[in-house]
Parts: sequence; C-alpha cells; structure tokens
Amino acid sequence: MESPIKQISRVLRSEDDFLVVSHYNPDGDALGSTCAMGHILKALGKQFTLYNTSGVPQRYDFVNKPAEILTELPERLPKWTIVLDCGAKDRMGDELMKRVDQTRIIDIDHHLGNGDYGEINWVDVRQPAVGSMIAELATELEVPLIGGLAECIYLAVATDTGFFSYGSTTPESLELAATMLRHGLDLARMNERITKQWSEERMRLWSEVMSDVQLFADKRVAVGTITQEIFERTGTTSGDTENIINFIRRLKSVRVAAILREEGENCYKFSLRSYGNDNVQEIASQFGGGGHKNASGGTIEAPLDEARELLVSAITAALELD
Amino acid sequence: MESPIKQISRVLRSEDDFLVVSHYNPDGDALGSTCAMGHILKALGKQFTLYNTSGVPQRYDFVNKPAEILTELPERLPKWTIVLDCGAKDRMGDELMKRVDQTRIIDIDHHLGNGDYGEINWVDVRQPAVGSMIAELATELEVPLIGGLAECIYLAVATDTGFFSYGSTTPESLELAATMLRHGLDLARMNERITKQWSEERMRLWSEVMSDVQLFADKRVAVGTITQEIFERTGTTSGDTENIINFIRRLKSVRVAAILREEGENCYKFSLRSYGNDNVQEIASQFGGGGHKNASGGTIEAPLDEARELLVSAITAALELD
Repeated sequence: MESPIKQISRVLRSEDDFLVVSHYNPDGDALGSTCAMGHILKALGKQFTLYNTSGVPQRYDFVNKPAEILTELPERLPKWTIVLDCGAKDRMGDELMKRVDQTRIIDIDHHLGNGDYGEINWVDVRQPAVGSMIAELATELEVPLIGGLAECIYLAVATDTGFFSYGSTTPESLELAATMLRHGLDLARMNERITKQWSEERMRLWSEVMSDVQLFADKRVAVGTITQEIFERTGTTSGDTENIINFIRRLKSVRVAAILREEGENCYKFSLRSYGNDNVQEIASQFGGGGHKNASGGTIEAPLDEARELLVSAITAALELD
Repeated sequence: MESPIKQISRVLRSEDDFLVVSHYNPDGDALGSTCAMGHILKALGKQFTLYNTSGVPQRYDFVNKPAEILTELPERLPKWTIVLDCGAKDRMGDELMKRVDQTRIIDIDHHLGNGDYGEINWVDVRQPAVGSMIAELATELEVPLIGGLAECIYLAVATDTGFFSYGSTTPESLELAATMLRHGLDLARMNERITKQWSEERMRLWSEVMSDVQLFADKRVAVGTITQEIFERTGTTSGDTENIINFIRRLKSVRVAAILREEGENCYKFSLRSYGNDNVQEIASQFGGGGHKNASGGTIEAPLDEARELLVSAITAALELD
C-alpha cells in the first residue's frame, strides 16, 4: 500500500484548492505547521486558505505567513481540508466541524489516539512535532527548506521540543535544524523572536508566583498559586502563565511541580509536571483530568486551601512520598 | 603541514602521562571538555590527571568523571599538559602557570585572541564550544561517542550554545547531538540534570530581582540590581545570579539588559546583554571592561545610584536612544 506521505504528496500535486487548519489556541507547532504547509502550497502554485478559529497569538506575531490566517471561514469552503496537530477532530473548531467535507480531510498529526478521522491519515507518535512531518513532506515534494518555510518549521519543532531538550527530541529533528541552518536559517534571530516576548506585567506576575511557591512532602512537591486577584493586580492573563511551571520544577528537591490557577469562584485549574517514572497522568485522572506521564492537568472545584490540600494529598499518595 | 588535530592525535597516541586542565570557575564547556578528554585518554589506556583550581561547581556535581578532578597539583607534574577553553594562559591558575613545562603544552580553545601559548595550538573561533572540538578529536582517534564521553560532550556543547539557541550554534554541533542521541545518549535525563539545580533561596533571589527591574530610555534599557543585602537576606551568593540577565532581556521592549551586582563598598560589577548590532562591548570598555558584541561586563566604583546613572547614560549615548 502507498504510504500516507506518498498519498498526501500525490493529492497536493494533482489536486487544487486547500484549506489548512490547526487546533484552536495554537501553540508554536500548530501555527508553524499551518504556515509551513501554506509555504509549500504556494511553492507548488496551488490555491490555499489558512484558517484558525483563535487566530495568531500575539507572542507569535512575527511568524512568516505565506497568506493571512483567517479567523472566519469563507462562504464557499475550499475543496480539501488539511488538518494539522489536531489529536481529536473537534480541535479544528465547531463551525468547520459542521461544514467540512468529511471525504476530503487530510489528517497530519503526532498525538496518541488521533482516531484517524481523515480520508488520508498520517499519524506518527514518534515525531517530536507536526512541523518535522511537514519538513519531510516538503522534501518528498522537492520544495527546498529555506526562507519562510524554514522559519516556520523551526518555530514548530523548536517550541514543541523545548529547544531540543525534551525526551521527544529525535536525531532526525536535530539534523533537520542542522540542514536549515546550513541553508541560511538565522537561528539566533529566530530564537530572539521566540523568547523576547515578555511584558513588564508578566515579569511582575512571575516574580509574585515564584516568591510564594509552597513546598510539601519533604520539599518533593512544589505548588505555585495564581489567583484572579494576582492577575488583576499585575495586569496579566492566563496566557502569561505559560511555562512558569517548568521554572518551578527546576527546584532541585522537587519531583512534582504544580500550578493552581483560579478559574472562577471555588474553581481551580491545575497543571502537574514530573520527571522520568513519576506518573502525573494518573494523578490528574483522579480529578477527571488527563495528559501525559510527565505533564498533565485538570480542574478541582473547591476553595483554594481545600483544592491545594486535595491535590497535594493525591500526589503524595500516588508517589508514596509519606 | 600537519593540521593541529592530527598533531594532537599523534601525541596522544604515542606519548603518555597527561595533565588535563581548564579555566578556573569552570562553566559547562570547561568542565565537560576536561572530563571528555579524560574519557578519551582512558579509552586509549593512558595515564592522566584531571585538575581545576576551582574544582567542580556544585551545580555540575552530576558530571560523569573518568577520574577525580584535583584542586591541588601533585608534587610531580605529568609530562604533558592539555589546556582547554583558556583564552589566555593565566586562566589555568597561578600555581600551574609557574610550574608547567612550556614546551609540552597542548592548547585547545575557541576564544578570539588566544595567543597560541602552547607547543601545539588548536584554536578555532568558529567552534561553538571546546566540547565540539574534543568530539572531533575523539572521532579522529576512533574513540566512540558513547557513555560518559557523550554525556560530557553534550554538557559542554549544550551549555555553551544556550541549548543550541545562540548564533554560535553550527550545523555540525546539531549533527553531533543527533549522532550521540542515536547512539544512546539520554537527552531528557541530561537536560533534567543540567536545569534542575535550583535552591529555594535562588528562587527567592530571582523573584526579588525580577520584581525590581528598572526601565530607562523609553523601556529600551532594563537594569536589575543585586545588593549584598539581598544576598544575605535570601541566603544566596553570586553563583545564584548566573543567567538572570538572560531572563531580563526577554522583555519585549528592551534592547540592552544590565545587571548591577554589589561587590564591595561603592563597588559594582555590571553585566550587559544585547541583540544583533547593538554593541555592548564598546560600552563596557568605557569602564575598563570587556567581552563580546552582545555580552560584556566590567566594574564601576561609585555608590549604587551613581553607578546606575553612569551605566544607563553610557548605554543611552552609545545606542543613540535619546
């Protein structure tokens, strides 16, 4: 049987008129992959429309776009829909879900349990990012990995691998970065754009949260707390909390880092991070949440002190830290 | 003429009894290179002694050592001395400087202006780290890049390139990481060890410094201040301030980030960081300091407010921010 990447290449070459979409609240991989796919279609001389129900987050306003990314679907939908980095079909957004032609979906993803909702499904969980899959597709289609295409692929892969530091990093993804660098990618400039995105307000927020990290279970559990009051006082939003948990887990003694973030009255979202064999997915599932072994989250409906106590007790019991 | 790497390979193969040294206050590259060279000599069945006048910093206590790293020189010095990552000869430490056999120094370095103080000098400023040079040497000597050797080389290269994010990152260094990963290097575990080194005290220090960053010149200059009083109150030392300046320069509006750190009465060390064409080396040199275009430092003898004003004025004038 023809491999998915060959099938997709054949469709991209022989057909025309594509909608490219990734999940709402796009991260670097979703956004980078969307634009990278657009650059490929542009190089092939195809008609295409880029779409994301949440649009481009401000922190990625520098992304090299081959066309505007629409937040409203056009009246007439393109013939084919390329769905990127969506582990479940509904991640493409409600309106598109209703209107999409089910028989012409190309599903490119690296999430476990994708469900193969497309007409063609290329799902590879060993890939560190969808961006690295788009790079393989470009090579298959003989579109060179240079210019805007290289920038978008780098954004996707670098952000999804924590700058090549996570266990998901593959030799191929490092070689991909090497190839793009050799062909002129300005790595330093890209990294400046990706990291130099802080407001004074966010720095104050982080400072407050870091000053008040609480330690439990002989310092092996760390909990940072973010209330609506802190958001209001520092002039920040939940978007400013991204990655703060990775900072908290730098504490040498800590095996599980947690963030509790107030969502509403007596309602707290939590995130958990661990290393190696410490499984925080199981802990999150006790509260109806989910995620991966070393990164999970969920919601607890309780006043702050009680929510914190419930969470710490669950962590302590699960990891037998008593 | 025989290339330096061939000359060094020949000496390592045919001779015996080596001292391996890097600069005092070793960073990840200095320490990783020292241990990597030890692993190579061990694989070659040679006698060797590892030495560093400052010893192993606590944050690198996980480093895979092929032998203890001595902080005192033995009575009888080894025949050959391999000097790593020392841009100037005196960086190897005073005692060794006095006693070393000048005719048997092997100098391996990537600093501009090294001065070729060795009998054999392999100085290559295009290399992102001395660690990547040691990797080339291992390949030349047919020592496989696995186990402890790979860990030490990764430590050296990853820390000196800011995890492959600085402009100094080369395609070859990314390919080197790919090769070591393919041969079994546990990237995630290494990165956990490198980053998971924080004390509660350091988190409090960072929180305090971040809460008090001052902005000048229409927010294009940011200054963080660290006094002896903050060190005492938070129970930290200057080692805990490493990298905090890179955090401050994440502010979107900022072109030059600065840290002023109290060294003694009316005496402040400063560090400067910039991006692209903004040259902070020239600014540092006005105060008798030095460094590179985007990273420099020096000392100002004045009370805090005056020191800050002098520094900000110099930055503002140099970058024409008025």
